[in-house]
Order: sequence, then structure tokens, then C-alpha cells
Amino acid sequence: MNSEEFRKAAHSAVDEIIDYFDTVQDRRVVSNVEPGYLRKLLPPAPPVEGEKWEDIQKDIEAKIMPGLTHWQSPNFMAFYPANTTYPSMLGELYSAAFTAPAFNWLCSPAVTELETIVLDWLAHILHLPDCFLSEGKGGGVIQGSASEAIVTVMVAARERYLNQACEGLEGKEREEKMNCTRGRLIALGSEQSHSSTAKAALIAGVRYKSIPTRMEDGLALTGDGLRMALDEYARDGLEPFYLTTTLGTTGTCATDQFYEIAETLRKAHVSTRIWVHVDAVYAGAALVLDEYQHIADQFAAFDSFNINMHKWLLTNFDASCLYVRTRADLTSALSITPSYLRNPFSDSGLVTDYRDWQIPLGRRFRALKIWFVLRSYGVNGLKAHIRKHIVMGEKFAAWVRERDDLWEIVTPPAFALTVITIALPARSKGTLPDGMTEPRVTDGVATSNTLPSTSEENRDRTNALTKKIYESINAAGEIFLTSSVVKGIYSIRIVSANEKADEAHLRRAFEILVDTAEMVISESKAEI
Amino acid sequence: MNSEEFRKAAHSAVDEIIDYFDTVQDRRVVSNVEPGYLRKLLPPAPPVEGEKWEDIQKDIEAKIMPGLTHWQSPNFMAFYPANTTYPSMLGELYSAAFTAPAFNWLCSPAVTELETIVLDWLAHILHLPDCFLSEGKGGGVIQGSASEAIVTVMVAARERYLNQACEGLEGKEREEKMNCTRGRLIALGSEQSHSSTAKAALIAGVRYKSIPTRMEDGLALTGDGLRMALDEYARDGLEPFYLTTTLGTTGTCATDQFYEIAETLRKAHVSTRIWVHVDAVYAGAALVLDEYQHIADQFAAFDSFNINMHKWLLTNFDASCLYVRTRADLTSALSITPSYLRNPFSDSGLVTDYRDWQIPLGRRFRALKIWFVLRSYGVNGLKAHIRKHIVMGEKFAAWVRERDDLWEIVTPPAFALTVITIALPARSKGTLPDGMTEPRVTDGVATSNTLPSTSEENRDRTNALTKKIYESINAAGEIFLTSSVVKGIYSIRIVSANEKADEAHLRRAFEILVDTAEMVISESKAEI
Repeated sequence: MNSEEFRKAAHSAVDEIIDYFDTVQDRRVVSNVEPGYLRKLLPPAPPVEGEKWEDIQKDIEAKIMPGLTHWQSPNFMAFYPANTTYPSMLGELYSAAFTAPAFNWLCSPAVTELETIVLDWLAHILHLPDCFLSEGKGGGVIQGSASEAIVTVMVAARERYLNQACEGLEGKEREEKMNCTRGRLIALGSEQSHSSTAKAALIAGVRYKSIPTRMEDGLALTGDGLRMALDEYARDGLEPFYLTTTLGTTGTCATDQFYEIAETLRKAHVSTRIWVHVDAVYAGAALVLDEYQHIADQFAAFDSFNINMHKWLLTNFDASCLYVRTRADLTSALSITPSYLRNPFSDSGLVTDYRDWQIPLGRRFRALKIWFVLRSYGVNGLKAHIRKHIVMGEKFAAWVRERDDLWEIVTPPAFALTVITIALPARSKGTLPDGMTEPRVTDGVATSNTLPSTSEENRDRTNALTKKIYESINAAGEIFLTSSVVKGIYSIRIVSANEKADEAHLRRAFEILVDTAEMVISESKAEI
Repeated sequence: MNSEEFRKAAHSAVDEIIDYFDTVQDRRVVSNVEPGYLRKLLPPAPPVEGEKWEDIQKDIEAKIMPGLTHWQSPNFMAFYPANTTYPSMLGELYSAAFTAPAFNWLCSPAVTELETIVLDWLAHILHLPDCFLSEGKGGGVIQGSASEAIVTVMVAARERYLNQACEGLEGKEREEKMNCTRGRLIALGSEQSHSSTAKAALIAGVRYKSIPTRMEDGLALTGDGLRMALDEYARDGLEPFYLTTTLGTTGTCATDQFYEIAETLRKAHVSTRIWVHVDAVYAGAALVLDEYQHIADQFAAFDSFNINMHKWLLTNFDASCLYVRTRADLTSALSITPSYLRNPFSDSGLVTDYRDWQIPLGRRFRALKIWFVLRSYGVNGLKAHIRKHIVMGEKFAAWVRERDDLWEIVTPPAFALTVITIALPARSKGTLPDGMTEPRVTDGVATSNTLPSTSEENRDRTNALTKKIYESINAAGEIFLTSSVVKGIYSIRIVSANEKADEAHLRRAFEILVDTAEMVISESKAEI
């Protein structure tokens, strides 16, 4: 493909992408191909002679498109959003053109320097504490994903802990102490933490323990919960070295009690031993809004913070922004510098070599797309985007409450996510069960349980109904939702946080939920 | 940025990228900015209101371009190539448009299915043994980088080994055996292996040992070398569980003795215990040529194979293709499936969930660019590309040999890479030193030492001269090279494997080498 062929091909590709975005809401949002569909459509081997772009491009609509689930559709309300935008795509295009496995500064200085700058910019607009800025001892780095970021900080935490534990020891004695300590290490998260913490523990070769949460705490990890867990691990001879806390859990967007957690660790004299990571991959985007920024002040007590711009901040996957308070913790755990990677700039310490902040050696020029997005939208554009979805989420919850004959809210709207289930029969509603208190407001975000209890039998029935409704809606394919089991309650998660999504799309989703529920309930009564 | 603004912006970006590629050879190949240059050019925070694309785009040439090292320039002959091409860029653009953190099949079936298909295609054209194809028990997966691939297989190897070692044990007994074994584990590579194996060991929490190589073996890991190392580790009570072997080492593009290695492991009865990985990230591309394909037959004895299409196979970073013989080794080590990631397709085992084949959860649609590249070039296009550079490398070595008054070949051309140093004074050339034998041909690839020896004093002097020549050439900036220290010999690596590079560029590089050498030698004589 020569220059003129590329110009023609690229213009045609851009036209196709624009058409796609202009019409994506008319496509079935979740793919309904059968497993193995594509193998039947493609030859068993690549062509011997090269093909023309026109022939290749035709296959995108014909063969790829039926197998896509359209995360950019305003009818996609599943998982969490994975936004892409035009400025972000331009960044990806330039990044592909300037390709370089930029493993050190000299490999392409702009790749490193722009990354440091845009991560400082992002830290400013999220109001992260100064300790996470590059001008001090900390700084930010772009990782491929939140799960990769967690492996990275967990390895740094493990090495920091082991080195502290073996301080002053040498030779055989050090080795024995090291092995013995390693066998007792445990990484922690709350039971609402994303599974990536458990997986990271597996990779790092340590055990994982999850700390229980309670509905009456809004499924947040609390200071008391952590303290009880630490006491139990101490009795069992285990040594916690790492903890994932979460701003916006995957299931219900719960927010852990950061202040209480920091206080508990301080009182237990382990705040310099246990590495605390803040997983804010989705909900962290809300920190662009003034009314949420007080939350970020609490992170000064912690070691690392992670937000995925590729979720709610208009940047295509991957753009996982990891901040650490002490970058030396990363580099001393991960640095290995062979001769062919040495150069005077790196040796002098004048420049950042991000390869020592991450698992892979090479890295793409991902800062470009972040730069384009931050500049195209401006801070006010980002605020407007986030606020719109939070307001929409609250409206959705209000519609649900108006139909409390049919639906119940399992967890109230938090960061645009509402979690609902089919309402229990009126006769089983009543007073709050033992141990359940009034809704609790966490950092300005209501995350508590407002759900009345009932007999297990009724719950089994509503769970089955909710599951059936959920499956019917996804099978129909006009909207795409995710389910979750919250403390035994089969629930449907609705989160509309896509740039193209407005109130009309969410209202339509609510209508689908109501209509499907009425249909399924009516069918179920007919069966009895 | 609305659709029409994007159309205009994207067309303008495409024009700029084409201009860049058409003129890249006229730019200084390695950036000469000072550390911190970009901070001075950019504001301390992002704009409050969004900016227009015209204003953003201007900054690419003005502020980013001076800080780029141009890996796409035909004057880039450093490290190994990192090719990008127009079809690959189109793939990246569509991938950004169809963005989805496609962590399971249902998230976007085409992402998974196209990946399986193009990796089978690639395995076919590299003539990999059938065990690495998806139709059996193995298969391929796209990783972000070779270093990430090595961490992935090393973790799988560690878990496989520990489970074998603790088979039949339960509870406390199993735990103790596990901890005890874990403390004795060692991951292995030859001393010529890429540093990513040492780093992976660090991440996996195990020790790393490197096995010596010899100049007379062409710096290859041999069966004898491995056997001696295994004997030594056994005496020290260590347990090797993983070995990286290499097709094309970073320093000199040496090729390990795969057949001998497999035989040694078989005779030592450890071939099912020690996971053998083949790192073919750069040189693996040569397996597209008929004359190299017999090498691939030997890999049937090993557990995993990795090639980076983003090096020599015309695909922009990242496209690291990892193949495993037994995919269950990966999934049983890395699978963690919480409820919100479950769906009937995955549960039934009908589909591949690549999240269990890798460290991160989310993944980009990287198969698109591989698909576009394989179809645009065709198998014959890829062969022509690779063969051209191998032939050019041989010509380069011939030019060097013609000037043996000035230059010596440290390692002869292998996969387009030649490694040279300043020739020793004529009086010190002579017979081969003790223990050094005639060149040895490995799998059709001459990788041996042809270097005459001399006194240490002369070597110190030629090392100093070579270093000065190398630094002068890179400071001048017309071409960009990398140095390497090979068994005490300061060497310059020249590898021209860029799509735009032809014989004229390499000839010019040779002239620069000769001219600079003559200048530096003449200056050094003047100083005496």
C-alpha cells in the first residue's frame, strides 16, 4: 500500500467509522452470532499474494460487524462503559504512525515526557493529593489495564514488605527468613473488590483473602471490618502486605470507608507496612466534579491510585492511569538494566524510564490520545459529560421508585449505576430486619441498602423472576445489561454513561424493564 | 468533535502522517532534545474550555516531532526494527473505533474469533508444529509484549511445577511442601537471553539463574552447557522449572541449540517438568522463508513460542504472538471467574475467553491489524520483505570484510544483524586462542565467532576506539545504531530491517562507519 493508496483507504475507513458512529444505535447492541461463526466465513490460511484494500474493507461490514457487541451504542448499559471518542481515535492513529517500543527515554523522549505531563494534568483535575504528582517522589504512569496495574503495585508491595522484614539479615539467614515470610504473605481486598486482586495474588505467588462487607454498610469496607479481619489474620500467623480499597465497586459501585481504613491501619501500626491501593477505575472519573473532590483528599494516606480513562473519560481502551506516592517503590522492585538498555540520560537519573514502572518492557505512545481528549473537551467538557450521567442515573432511580409495585432498588444510584431487583410481594414488605440500620451516606454518595427483607422463599421467587427478565431483555437485544448477585439477591445493573446516551435512551430502557417484567410476571402467574 | 469535524480532522491527520512517512528519512533519526524539553513548551494544566483540532494538531509538528526518535526512518539501524505500515495503522484505527475491553467472548465475539483465526494463519506461515494450533490442545494469543508473554508462561510453569511437586498432598502438609518447593525454584535462561526473563522471575517471586555461553558456540545455549548447569543446580538443591531459549538473541542474534536442549532435558527426565519457552520475538519472522522452516520443527518439544509481529513483520506495536502447546496450562493457572464475568457461552466451554490466557483482564482488538497486514502483503509479500533484509545484511558483512584493515566482524550476519568492532592492529592477529574452534553452523545460520584474539591491552584500545566511533555516529544523528558488549568486546550492532530501507541506506551507513572510524583513529594517533 503506497501513500496514495493509503490516503484513499484511510479516507474510506474514516467515512465508514463515521457512518458506524452515526448509526450505531440502530444496530443490535449485543452480538447474537453462534460460537465459531467467523471460522466458517474466512479461508483457512492467508492469501499467497496481497489483496487490495477495497476487498479487505468489504469484510469489515460483512464478517466482523455481526460479531461485534457495540460498546459505543447508547443502548449499551452493561458492565461499565468503555468510551471512545473521535479525538481519542486520532491519538491512536498518530500513535500507530509514530510506533516505537519506547522502553526508555531516548527511544523517543516525547513518549515519556508527554506521559508525565498529561498524568500530572489528570492528577490536577481529579484533585489528587500532591504526593501523586511527578514533581515530588511520586508520579503517574499509563498501564494497559487496571489488572496489570494491580499486579505491578502488588509486586512492589511484596518486595517492600519482604525487604523490611529481612532488614539487617544476610546470606542464608536472610534467605530462610525470606522464604518463611513469603509463605505467610496475604494480599487483601473486600469481598466486593474486583477479581483482579485475587488474580494478581496468584501471579505474584501469594495468598488472597477477601474481607466481608455488609448490606448495612452499603457493601463498603469499613474500619471495623478491616480491624476484625487483621486481628483474625494475626491469630492465624498470616502477614497482610497489600490491600485493595475501592471507589466504585464492580457489582454496585460501593465506596469503601477510606478515612476509617487509614485510621485503622495507623492505629494498628501497619500503615507503612501494608500497601494500600485505591481502585477507582470507573468512579474515579467523578472526581472531576467539585462536589466529589473531597473524597480524593483521603488518598494521601495511601500508596497508589488507579483510574481507567478508557471507562468513563472518553478515551479508548487502553488508558489505565496509575499513580504512586513513592516511585522508588516501583523502580526498586522492577528495575533490571542490561547494557543494551543503558544510556547517559538514564544513568544520570535525569529522565524517567517507564519500563521500570511496569511489567512489560516496551510501551505505546498512549499519552497522545489522553492529550487530545483533555484538550478537545477541556475541563468543563469533562465535567459536563460526567454530571450528565450522574443526573440521568438519579432520574432512572426515581422512575424505579415510582414503580415500587414492580421493582425494588437494591443499591441506590451511585456514579450513574443503579442496581434493581423485582419487588417482593407487598405482604412480605415491612420493618428492617435485625442488625439493619437506616441508609448510610458515604462521602456524599448514598451507597446503603434500602431493601426490605422477606422470607427466603419469596426471595427465591423474585430472584428467579429477575433472572428471567434479565435474560429476556438481553436475548431481545435492544439494550444490553449485566446482572449481579448482591448478598443473595439476583440483581440487574443499569449504567448509562456513554457519550451518545441521553435521557430518552435511559427512559426507553426503563420501559423495556417494566414491560418485560410485567410480561414475565404474567407468564409466571399463568404457569401456576 | 462532531462527525464532520472528525472527517476534516482525520483527513488532515492522514495527510500529515503520509507527509511524515514520505519525508522521515530527511529528519534527524534520533532525537537530540534535552531532558525536560516538553515541560517548557506545554501549560501546567489542561485548558478549561475545549480547543479546536487545528490548534491541537499544530503542536504535533511543533512540540512532539522534535522529541521523537524515528523508528520508521530507513536510517534507524539500532536495537531491532519496530515496523509499522499503512495496513497496520488502519487496523489500529478500526480497533479504536470498535473499542471494547473484550475480556470474554460475549463482550465482542469477533475480537476473540478473529484472534484465534489469524494466530492459526500465522502459525501456518511460520510452519510451527501442529501442537501450537487452536484445533488441538494448544493455540495462540496476542499479548502486549514479549516480556508480558514471559511473565504469563512463567507463572503457568510455576503453578504446573508446584502442583506436580505437591500431588497427592493436602492441607498443612501440602502448604509446607509448597512453601519449601517455592523457595527452591529457579527460572533459567542463557546469559544471552533477553532481560525480560530475569524480570519475569522477579515478578513471579522466584530466583533467576543465567547459564553461561561461549564464543566458540556462537553464543548459543548448547546441550552440554545446559547439562552442566542442571547438574550444578541439583548439587545446590535448586529446582529449575522454566527455561527461556532464544531464536535470535538481543545482543548478536544467536540461535540456541534447540535439538540438543530438548535431548538434554529428555535424558535428564525433566522434559515434562521444566517449561521451555522459545523467545523468537525478532528472528522468528525469518520462519516465513522456506530455507528457515526446518528450525520450527524442533519446537514441538517445547511448551511455548513467542514472536513479535511488531518487530519485523510490518505490524505496529503491540502485536506479540504467544503460542502454547497446552492451553489448559495457562487457564488453570490464571482463571478466576466471578459471577459478573459468567455467561452461558463461556460456561459451556464452547468459546475461548482469552482473559484466562494473560495477565490483564481487558484486551484490545489487535487481531484486526494482523489480519489487514497478512492480507495486504500476502505470504509472498512477507517473504520478499524478510529476504530483502537478510540479503542486505550479507552484503553489509561483505563490505566490512573488504575493509578488514579497519573493521572486524564479531558475529557474522544473522537475520540481517551484523556485529562489528574496530580491527586489532595487524601484528596482534593470529591463531585462534586456546579452546576456540572453527566457526560452527547452527541450523543453517552461522552464529559463531570468527574473531582473532589478541592481548588485553590491544582490546582495551580497540574497545575505546569503537565506543568513541559509536558515540560520534549517534551524536551526528544521520543514522542511529546500538552498541553491545560481547564477551568483553565493545561492539556496534547494525541491523537494517525497516520496510523503507534499501541497499543505498545501508551503504551510506557503512560509509559513515568507515569515515568516522578513520577520523577517530586519526585523532587518536594525533593525541599520542
